[in-house]
Amino acid sequence: MPEDPPGAIDRLCTDAVRDSPASPYDAWRELSATHPEAVQLGVGFPFTDAFPTEELAAATNEILRKEPEALQYGGSEAADSLPGAIADHVGRRGLAVGADDLIVTGGASRAIDTIADVFLEPGRVVFTEEATFPSAVTYFRDHGAAVAGCALDREGLDVAALGDDLARRERTGEDLPTLLYTIPTFQNPTGTTLPEKRREALLDLATEYDFAILEDDAYGALRYDGESVPPLAAMDRERPGPDRVIHVGTAAKTIAPGVRIGWVIAPEAVSEEIERRHAGAANSFVRSAVARYLAEESFEERVAKLCESYRSRRDHMLEALEGEMPSHIGWTEPDGGFFVWVTLPDGIDAEAMLPTAAAAGVIYMPGSAFYPNEGGENRLRISFSTGSPAETERAVAALARTIESA
Amino acid sequence: MPEDPPGAIDRLCTDAVRDSPASPYDAWRELSATHPEAVQLGVGFPFTDAFPTEELAAATNEILRKEPEALQYGGSEAADSLPGAIADHVGRRGLAVGADDLIVTGGASRAIDTIADVFLEPGRVVFTEEATFPSAVTYFRDHGAAVAGCALDREGLDVAALGDDLARRERTGEDLPTLLYTIPTFQNPTGTTLPEKRREALLDLATEYDFAILEDDAYGALRYDGESVPPLAAMDRERPGPDRVIHVGTAAKTIAPGVRIGWVIAPEAVSEEIERRHAGAANSFVRSAVARYLAEESFEERVAKLCESYRSRRDHMLEALEGEMPSHIGWTEPDGGFFVWVTLPDGIDAEAMLPTAAAAGVIYMPGSAFYPNEGGENRLRISFSTGSPAETERAVAALARTIESA
Repeated sequence: MPEDPPGAIDRLCTDAVRDSPASPYDAWRELSATHPEAVQLGVGFPFTDAFPTEELAAATNEILRKEPEALQYGGSEAADSLPGAIADHVGRRGLAVGADDLIVTGGASRAIDTIADVFLEPGRVVFTEEATFPSAVTYFRDHGAAVAGCALDREGLDVAALGDDLARRERTGEDLPTLLYTIPTFQNPTGTTLPEKRREALLDLATEYDFAILEDDAYGALRYDGESVPPLAAMDRERPGPDRVIHVGTAAKTIAPGVRIGWVIAPEAVSEEIERRHAGAANSFVRSAVARYLAEESFEERVAKLCESYRSRRDHMLEALEGEMPSHIGWTEPDGGFFVWVTLPDGIDAEAMLPTAAAAGVIYMPGSAFYPNEGGENRLRISFSTGSPAETERAVAALARTIESA
Repeated sequence: MPEDPPGAIDRLCTDAVRDSPASPYDAWRELSATHPEAVQLGVGFPFTDAFPTEELAAATNEILRKEPEALQYGGSEAADSLPGAIADHVGRRGLAVGADDLIVTGGASRAIDTIADVFLEPGRVVFTEEATFPSAVTYFRDHGAAVAGCALDREGLDVAALGDDLARRERTGEDLPTLLYTIPTFQNPTGTTLPEKRREALLDLATEYDFAILEDDAYGALRYDGESVPPLAAMDRERPGPDRVIHVGTAAKTIAPGVRIGWVIAPEAVSEEIERRHAGAANSFVRSAVARYLAEESFEERVAKLCESYRSRRDHMLEALEGEMPSHIGWTEPDGGFFVWVTLPDGIDAEAMLPTAAAAGVIYMPGSAFYPNEGGENRLRISFSTGSPAETERAVAALARTIESA
């Protein structure tokens, strides 16, 4: 890191901020900029045609004509109806909540950051999956918390290994976590889904070791195959004892990322703290427009359409991988979400291979970008959410060629 | 405070969050809910007719038709033009910055919270004006910082008294501030504006005692009388030595609060930290729509129209105060912004008087709501931004009657 100019004011930043590592996306960002012609499999963007542009335009027009108070602090009647629409949406996956139990936030990232405000400070530890959503790690670190990664396998978080680690920490007097952050369903970056039994075991550990769980359900509604697994928050609420799961969701993958609509469902006393910090931060204009839109097309109708598109995209990518990849390469086969997680042979460094791949016509996200600490060098994440079938095919072929000659 | 239920998870909140005081708005909120018929002078809301609803509807339509990528992560060409429009806007008040020097945020509150992330942690001290924007205090406290109030007089922050306090702290080994938060122009809640000489002296103190300054310029563009005073950030950039002012602005009072558009202008190394934390948090949809709107009507055209309306609103309120108030009551006469700060005789408690005032037909914000610590009991804030002239007249008459019989 370059020296600060003498006396520069960033000396006054907190230690946590000054010590924060460089962005995990740096290598990817650089290659993406220099190779705009390569197919971009690195990002978790919905495909642009998926957005309800006409419907949102109509909804916005109607709001501005009939409820100009949508532009005021606080909002409008339409905005007030949004929590109900979201409650209905999460209720269909088994998380029964009332509209009043739910806080609408400026996207899931804002929600995660606010939860970090509430729970984290220097000296505290947060556990994450050993490969996870990098922005969450940034938020946790900037609050001064230490971040420890927990092993993953093909069924998501390895809860038995987590139990061993917690027991070991207790025995040796090492710090126990205040918070565990997990993406249990269609995990980012691995695409894995935690089975119900493991969810139960994880909730047992939270009770035994007294930590809170932050459940990031960004992809949970987008299931293309298999049986639905209840969100951790739903299971938590059916267990005896105080609730300890804070559930975060988002409209980014179902409506559009650009609207920045997320939500939090938390135990009441925690909700109050989140609400208090979040007051005034909600975008009344967009909340009103999105609520108006959802009065015409429900989340469920929308999700049904999206699942059809994404299922065929996923199938297409898996077929391409099957057809093109060398036999010693492994990858996950997700039942939902956006991502496939590829494991290369030991000794191949995915970040070091990225320039060659980009030159061959494909950009992916190196696995190490998702690791809060060391690790993931021989992994990479590819997304089937953004590209067209032809692009995906071309990109997977280029990736296979790159790996073969690595 | 009620006891937590046994084992409830909010036990795990940070000490700073658990110790945070009740909302300063509680008394006001309760009375506002029970007296919807009373004229509301308590809030700093723009009047609803001020919003460019038709223009925003047209802009939104055009964006969704021509740039659907406004709904994607990252944004659109239109969104990319927004920093330039804002740079032009702040440049007219003497703060010469390029579009690249400016970070667009989800409102000024989000900006202040992010700056708190960067600079504050337990053990640090932040100075504010002794009456200030309560949400900022909440953000600072939730980061574990201690908040100390600095005296105000009719010219804003009493910089000489601040100098004495800093010298005393240095002498006695008491904590010195990392950050000083100020609203130097048309201050909230007092309406005062810090003269240029005091601004210079404040910057001298920041250099001498090595703290950063967070300049909240929420109201600065709305001047109805008198000579413009340069923003602290503009003066800071012309001085030798490293820059130490972080400037925050907002479109809430000039376009509309509901769009949640704010911005930060900071020394480069601090900007990088803010940007890094804020990535992904910007609302591309609204940024695109607002940028499209600003291509048709600039900030300057809009501000000129607004100043005309608000000037007459302010004059109307000052005339009403002059005509109705008992002679022993004092108030500020702001050259801009939204607020008049009223001082009652010692012994009259504005919060205790609020129910009587509400019953008489007027609701104001008790002064104590703005004090980070004790104080302000005999003060109150009234706003001329929201009500119609007839409402303002009626409300001021009701306030005068209430004070007379208190």
